[in-house]
Amino acid sequence: MILAEMTWKEVEALSRDTIVVIPTGSIEQHGPFLPTATDTLIATAVTAVVEKQVSDQVMVTPTIWLGASGHHLPFAGTLSASVTGYVETLTSTIQSLAKHRFHRFLIINGHGGNNEPNGITLRQIKEQNPNLTLGHRGYYQFAEQVIAETLEGSIKGIQHACEAEVSLMLHLYPEKVRKDLIRDDGLRPVTPVQSLVKGWDEISEEGSFGFATLGTAEKGKRIFDACVEGIVNEIEAIHAGVVYRGIF
Amino acid sequence: MILAEMTWKEVEALSRDTIVVIPTGSIEQHGPFLPTATDTLIATAVTAVVEKQVSDQVMVTPTIWLGASGHHLPFAGTLSASVTGYVETLTSTIQSLAKHRFHRFLIINGHGGNNEPNGITLRQIKEQNPNLTLGHRGYYQFAEQVIAETLEGSIKGIQHACEAEVSLMLHLYPEKVRKDLIRDDGLRPVTPVQSLVKGWDEISEEGSFGFATLGTAEKGKRIFDACVEGIVNEIEAIHAGVVYRGIF
Amino acid sequence: MILAEMTWKEVEALSRDTIVVIPTGSIEQHGPFLPTATDTLIATAVTAVVEKQVSDQVMVTPTIWLGASGHHLPFAGTLSASVTGYVETLTSTIQSLAKHRFHRFLIINGHGGNNEPNGITLRQIKEQNPNLTLGHRGYYQFAEQVIAETLEGSIKGIQHACEAEVSLMLHLYPEKVRKDLIRDDGLRPVTPVQSLVKGWDEISEEGSFGFATLGTAEKGKRIFDACVEGIVNEIEAIHAGVVYRGIF
Amino acid sequence: MILAEMTWKEVEALSRDTIVVIPTGSIEQHGPFLPTATDTLIATAVTAVVEKQVSDQVMVTPTIWLGASGHHLPFAGTLSASVTGYVETLTSTIQSLAKHRFHRFLIINGHGGNNEPNGITLRQIKEQNPNLTLGHRGYYQFAEQVIAETLEGSIKGIQHACEAEVSLMLHLYPEKVRKDLIRDDGLRPVTPVQSLVKGWDEISEEGSFGFATLGTAEKGKRIFDACVEGIVNEIEAIHAGVVYRGIF
Amino acid sequence: MILAEMTWKEVEALSRDTIVVIPTGSIEQHGPFLPTATDTLIATAVTAVVEKQVSDQVMVTPTIWLGASGHHLPFAGTLSASVTGYVETLTSTIQSLAKHRFHRFLIINGHGGNNEPNGITLRQIKEQNPNLTLGHRGYYQFAEQVIAETLEGSIKGIQHACEAEVSLMLHLYPEKVRKDLIRDDGLRPVTPVQSLVKGWDEISEEGSFGFATLGTAEKGKRIFDACVEGIVNEIEAIHAGVVYRGIF
Amino acid sequence: MILAEMTWKEVEALSRDTIVVIPTGSIEQHGPFLPTATDTLIATAVTAVVEKQVSDQVMVTPTIWLGASGHHLPFAGTLSASVTGYVETLTSTIQSLAKHRFHRFLIINGHGGNNEPNGITLRQIKEQNPNLTLGHRGYYQFAEQVIAETLEGSIKGIQHACEAEVSLMLHLYPEKVRKDLIRDDGLRPVTPVQSLVKGWDEISEEGSFGFATLGTAEKGKRIFDACVEGIVNEIEAIHAGVVYRGIF
Repeated sequence: MILAEMTWKEVEALSRDTIVVIPTGSIEQHGPFLPTATDTLIATAVTAVVEKQVSDQVMVTPTIWLGASGHHLPFAGTLSASVTGYVETLTSTIQSLAKHRFHRFLIINGHGGNNEPNGITLRQIKEQNPNLTLGHRGYYQFAEQVIAETLEGSIKGIQHACEAEVSLMLHLYPEKVRKDLIRDDGLRPVTPVQSLVKGWDEISEEGSFGFATLGTAEKGKRIFDACVEGIVNEIEAIHAGVVYRGIF
Repeated sequence: MILAEMTWKEVEALSRDTIVVIPTGSIEQHGPFLPTATDTLIATAVTAVVEKQVSDQVMVTPTIWLGASGHHLPFAGTLSASVTGYVETLTSTIQSLAKHRFHRFLIINGHGGNNEPNGITLRQIKEQNPNLTLGHRGYYQFAEQVIAETLEGSIKGIQHACEAEVSLMLHLYPEKVRKDLIRDDGLRPVTPVQSLVKGWDEISEEGSFGFATLGTAEKGKRIFDACVEGIVNEIEAIHAGVVYRGIF
Repeated sequence: MILAEMTWKEVEALSRDTIVVIPTGSIEQHGPFLPTATDTLIATAVTAVVEKQVSDQVMVTPTIWLGASGHHLPFAGTLSASVTGYVETLTSTIQSLAKHRFHRFLIINGHGGNNEPNGITLRQIKEQNPNLTLGHRGYYQFAEQVIAETLEGSIKGIQHACEAEVSLMLHLYPEKVRKDLIRDDGLRPVTPVQSLVKGWDEISEEGSFGFATLGTAEKGKRIFDACVEGIVNEIEAIHAGVVYRGIF
Repeated sequence: MILAEMTWKEVEALSRDTIVVIPTGSIEQHGPFLPTATDTLIATAVTAVVEKQVSDQVMVTPTIWLGASGHHLPFAGTLSASVTGYVETLTSTIQSLAKHRFHRFLIINGHGGNNEPNGITLRQIKEQNPNLTLGHRGYYQFAEQVIAETLEGSIKGIQHACEAEVSLMLHLYPEKVRKDLIRDDGLRPVTPVQSLVKGWDEISEEGSFGFATLGTAEKGKRIFDACVEGIVNEIEAIHAGVVYRGIF
Repeated sequence: MILAEMTWKEVEALSRDTIVVIPTGSIEQHGPFLPTATDTLIATAVTAVVEKQVSDQVMVTPTIWLGASGHHLPFAGTLSASVTGYVETLTSTIQSLAKHRFHRFLIINGHGGNNEPNGITLRQIKEQNPNLTLGHRGYYQFAEQVIAETLEGSIKGIQHACEAEVSLMLHLYPEKVRKDLIRDDGLRPVTPVQSLVKGWDEISEEGSFGFATLGTAEKGKRIFDACVEGIVNEIEAIHAGVVYRGIF
Repeated sequence: MILAEMTWKEVEALSRDTIVVIPTGSIEQHGPFLPTATDTLIATAVTAVVEKQVSDQVMVTPTIWLGASGHHLPFAGTLSASVTGYVETLTSTIQSLAKHRFHRFLIINGHGGNNEPNGITLRQIKEQNPNLTLGHRGYYQFAEQVIAETLEGSIKGIQHACEAEVSLMLHLYPEKVRKDLIRDDGLRPVTPVQSLVKGWDEISEEGSFGFATLGTAEKGKRIFDACVEGIVNEIEAIHAGVVYRGIF
């Protein structure tokens, strides 16, 4: 079910075991060849297909498109939420529906920079409302193996305006990709230093990071389908009342 | 121009006299016959047509769909931002682009409950950044005379899931209107008391307020076109550097 | 009843149906001829006369004199609350008395810039405490018709250090008006642009706005009496348990 | 000079070496015999007389009457600011005038519970604005020796609705004192425990604390005059540019 | 008992009448001869000895070492909490254990600058949780008479990197004192001005204040033992259920 | 160098290329056999040995022991910071030293729950201060391969009161381990659901998680030494001015 399309009486009539699915994205620079809404578009598209497959188990909210993108602000057109604002927006969305007695919430995230604020927000809500079921994950984390197998470049996970994202956009919205401007970016490394937080202008010449030139619509379809399948499995398990319980 | 569709280099190339247009809406109950996204849909649609007419003078951001809707929370499916969250989201959107040296911002609002927080937010930003040009207004405030002339019911302004909003939705998205469920709502008055803030469950039986049954697609078109025209005029005046200067 | 004059036992003895009346004003520039406390003085004076007429139905708090006046800060002597501070002050005042089981609160506002924060504050409190009766309004909004009929200038509503405010001050505190310095202010308009928030230095030469030179004590008395009458009617209706219920 | 009485041009014309004096009080229970505004009334009265004596050296703001009075909330009619709200109100008052280039601020406090938030507020402002001269003190701290000599009861400092406060009110506002209801309060001690913060209902039967029955107008006059003299001396020293410089 | 050393089951097994003792200190400049941790070291040491004497009546938390030290920031190596951060840290510490049903909390403070935020924090918590027993005090306030009798310089109370603190450090951690660099500091006074808040660079040449050269280990021992004794007495009284009840 | 041990003049004399190292830990339940301070103890011990090896390149602050531990609050003795408080404490620590012109900061974290707030805090500071070098990482992340090779249980990474933590504590503080109470914990899994945030009482019987019974001091030494080596390498690289620059 799609919240934005429903009347309040239709929402009222839903089972409260319905899982509220909240897509999160960003409006931020994606190099000279992908639009600023890339993360929002992909998270929204993945969630829309998921919704069609398990429509009776979910209610999807609109996509939170203002992400935590401070590291991309050096590039024009990037919008970034403050931490306070991001946490408040997500919390209000969940708390509003919790007042209507929904108790299961799953965030499908399209922007890596949202992972930390998503986690912090849910942990805060969980501490105050231990009976809620709360989850979050990047859409790409549901298909890490397929992504690693699909990508040809030496980087085997999703980066930013990279082989994976270009592939997904060529699959979903080929008309939005400036194909003639696709380029690889990210300078040669000289050190294994791993702990630093960086502004994106410190690690990329023109805003992208990875082997964007290797992207194809076929790879995009394979990744997309795998993500959808992973999320559908997760939703069916949560809907069935299954929770993570151990280590063996 | 549409920010979400652009790459950062395309944004970078824009004139900084471009007016950033930010639509604001809500996800809130609109009676048993209109979808929760009604305000968001109308504000987005109005802005989209405006953008086509003055494309070289504006850059439109995505619509802020999480409104200040606490008074509608008694009805399921309503989402409401905290004041803090709403102000932060709007401020971050503006401040992000101000870092990129845009200096003109205009909010086109689709939800009456956002007017106060829109005003407060802009006043705060203006106080700290007196050189910015900042404006906000309900889309319906640009065509109040046409609205008054168009409506047949005794209420001559826009209310909530009313003659005007039903008309606009029948014009824009007739398939989203549950036509068989349209009803008037709002009880008979017994007093001129005017100062009270009310929960929407205190003034409506099923969430709407006004003569919804009088709505038609024709009225919707007339109102819609007048709003677009009014906003286009406002944008052209602001773009030309005209500011309000006096009382005569 | 006047809270500041009472002992706690006298407050304790009051009926909890008593309406708590909270005047709000400002300390802000009012041109070269009215004192900074003008809004505070008028709101306090109106409320004081109201209190005498319906003493057994109300308990008046001291006037909140630190208003939301950021748009007047370019002129010396203006004090302005932050939004956070204003909301907190008003909320604390109401919540303190709500702890003592008072449940009806009415703000009588003397400064237009407080309307938005007054509204936001009450909406927040109402959302959390739906059983409270909460209202706010400018004192001048209770007599709009009389004001329009009384004013001779082409502006038929209250502005700032204008015909209406000068008239009220000449009626209430003639010794505080620098009569020889009264002047009209506000430049000739060149556009109908209506959406912009403005610093007061952008729309006035010396801080006032309107036909101040047309002010007289007689007009002030007529306006003042009408405001008092309007507020007394509102209080009596609220005290009788009447609430706004509909649209016909 | 009295800010509330001045026009902005008169403020503008002041020397920026003028000391801004901010009285702080409370609206809180003062036993069955003193009005809730007692602290506000005394702080305001002391400051008013001081202003007359050193009018050319000071500009007095209105009294901040919403104090930090949470410990008195168990008694009806007490209003209490949140810490956030109190700090914001005081900070905004100072920062507004600092924008107009005033650089000396002195708080004259009438409510002991405000001392900690006054201190914290000024320390925060000082840290960010090291060139400002910022001071705060209870009015009674300027005359501790005279107070100790004047009081006949075994408590030699000011408490709450006590010998000293009753005396001051009998001197300043005898008509506001319910003389027939004056009583001593505060139970017999059984321990030297000194570190605890207490609700006022834990240490007083009816809200007062001390030997109120010993209060007289004569004692009030002696204390009042000594406080005024102490504050005038402080102001003259600050105005002369004297600052605390050492330990000998 | 020492919380950091215990397992959760050992904490769970404690009587809930156990007093939670929270030492608070600072990391701030203490002149050229004492380490930045001086306040933290002394508060921790005092509390540790107290714990040994009344082990079955207390549970000691780690020392809050980030104090409110903005006035010392002009000197390198000083760390200072924001007021918000300090209040939150202390509140979270108390609220966490209140969730486990502990209800008695006593702060032993080693840094004068923490007194105001300690007070404000406890007052806020007390207002919301009137059944909690909450106390705070400087360790030195439990032995003011002994301190006054012990000090030879003309200042009879504790200051900063002064005779008393040097003595305590020579007693507790002589190896941490740069004995050859000890010096008196604080300029000659020229005025009785008492109300001002000051940056420490305004009242000290090199960061200390007082007759540091008079410090000895013997004085330190006498003061230390007296503080321990005073705190032990306080704890035993609170543990016995004694509370402050009056004025005679 | 160790900040707590230094005088301000010694800090002042340091090269500003010195890396400020901030250990972060927690006070939270670690099952029935490890003390609540486990994370704090390990992070502090690792950092202390690192400091000895690269003393001239670092200045270590005290360990932030109040972690983000809300998920452990169901077990007694757990303390948890609010997100606001945690972020403020860390931000104040960094900003205080940034005022003294230090520009390199590295957090060595001992508690997994701090990773998200550490990341968010540094990203916020970086956005406002792009010239600062800011890093954070769990101590265990510097030796993931050695940890995986060392652990015998089927879990190859660090968990909570697990094989790795027991080993480290047996190596560092064997006297603090309740050896007779060591037990494995964490129930048998029935699902691959991975997205949920959980209270620790939902996934553990008595608070630990992993094969604690497999812990040995020898494993602890191997892990400890590898962590120290990894951190030393990171510090030397950062100190040499090396930053992460690319993807090949």
